[in-house]
Amino acid sequence: MRSLRTIAFDADDTLWHHQNLFEETQERFRALLRPHREDAWIDAQLHDTEMRNLRHFGYGVKGFMLSMVETAIQLTDGRIAGAEIQKIIELGKEMLDRPIELMPGVAATLESLSHQYELMVITKGDLFDQETKLARSGLGALFAKVEVVSEKDAPTYAAILKRHGIGPGHFMMVGNSLKSDIEPVLAIGGRAVHVPYDLQWSHDRVEGMSRNTHSYLEINSLSELPELLERLEE
Amino acid sequence: MRSLRTIAFDADDTLWHHQNLFEETQERFRALLRPHREDAWIDAQLHDTEMRNLRHFGYGVKGFMLSMVETAIQLTDGRIAGAEIQKIIELGKEMLDRPIELMPGVAATLESLSHQYELMVITKGDLFDQETKLARSGLGALFAKVEVVSEKDAPTYAAILKRHGIGPGHFMMVGNSLKSDIEPVLAIGGRAVHVPYDLQWSHDRVEGMSRNTHSYLEINSLSELPELLERLEE
Repeated sequence: MRSLRTIAFDADDTLWHHQNLFEETQERFRALLRPHREDAWIDAQLHDTEMRNLRHFGYGVKGFMLSMVETAIQLTDGRIAGAEIQKIIELGKEMLDRPIELMPGVAATLESLSHQYELMVITKGDLFDQETKLARSGLGALFAKVEVVSEKDAPTYAAILKRHGIGPGHFMMVGNSLKSDIEPVLAIGGRAVHVPYDLQWSHDRVEGMSRNTHSYLEINSLSELPELLERLEE
Repeated sequence: MRSLRTIAFDADDTLWHHQNLFEETQERFRALLRPHREDAWIDAQLHDTEMRNLRHFGYGVKGFMLSMVETAIQLTDGRIAGAEIQKIIELGKEMLDRPIELMPGVAATLESLSHQYELMVITKGDLFDQETKLARSGLGALFAKVEVVSEKDAPTYAAILKRHGIGPGHFMMVGNSLKSDIEPVLAIGGRAVHVPYDLQWSHDRVEGMSRNTHSYLEINSLSELPELLERLEE
């Protein structure tokens, strides 16, 4: 384990809370549409719209805002008023403006690890939004490298490692998503540590993947990472 | 000039047409709102909304879509119907789906230059949108490096060159925007070639900058670049 040089972290729901912001916004969106439709219909239609729009919009808050607007129009058969749609846009702007709420122990853990390892962020989503979040998080200076990518698959990780001249044997990825942070990194020969977040987005699950069949590690909180690394280095 | 190793290109309105797509979409947007307001009001309000939203949305089509929706709501005092707003969203999706229309001579010029120089794209905007455009352009394989950034200023260029180990003396930027492609590159000691596009976005202009006071070169079309480079190397 002494060969480990670079530790990369996912950002949303690994370094800071993110999914709960979508959940809260979706609840406020439901409340807006409740005069028109039942919650289950609203959720199902929003999910369908998001999946259909992924091809156009990719991941991120702006695409989510546009999908909420479309869903509201569909569920009211186009009768929703402009003023209501403005409220939906305001919900999205509030998401973009919200203070960053770090996960427990993140700042101290990263600060400590930054003395021994090169730290990196590899995050999926909207470039502008991710950059402003990193700036607002106060963590920016701890990371030697930041990569915002549109898809977190094995070729993407391979390209990042190649670009930065990092051998997979010297690389570890830490994140909350088995599909985006763990599986593709194992596939290219890197190491991976899973920090589960309890509110997993359904799209992020990987069928048939468990700790028994793939060699990755799991911790309950990022603050357990230094101890895990020490044990691995013994 | 023999020291030149890397040539980076802006993408929108340098490699392919882009601004005319915004212009066309804006004309269709005006047509939608003409029953409510005069063109000049629509244009002024859209511009104000875009500028106000830049802080939230950054650059790109999704932010433009959201700004069109907000403008339509404001100009109708919230009375616009959902069905009309859906039409605005469709205008945006058509922008995102449109085939890439390369500028004249681009493919042949890049192909020829790629044998002598390392080619790179440095573009501002929405990560997902820029990546899909590059993929659809058919030019992807000609570029050794692609950087999508949220702001094209001198620190951004300095960071890119540092990350890739390129000295400013070995670097040339080619683009249509004096503010984004020329001025910041000259400021960090790189070379820059301006390829003006006739439909400049007003936000992109730099006051008081002319070829007399700054040492950059200008060509009318990207296909003039190989000849310019040959002359410089003599």
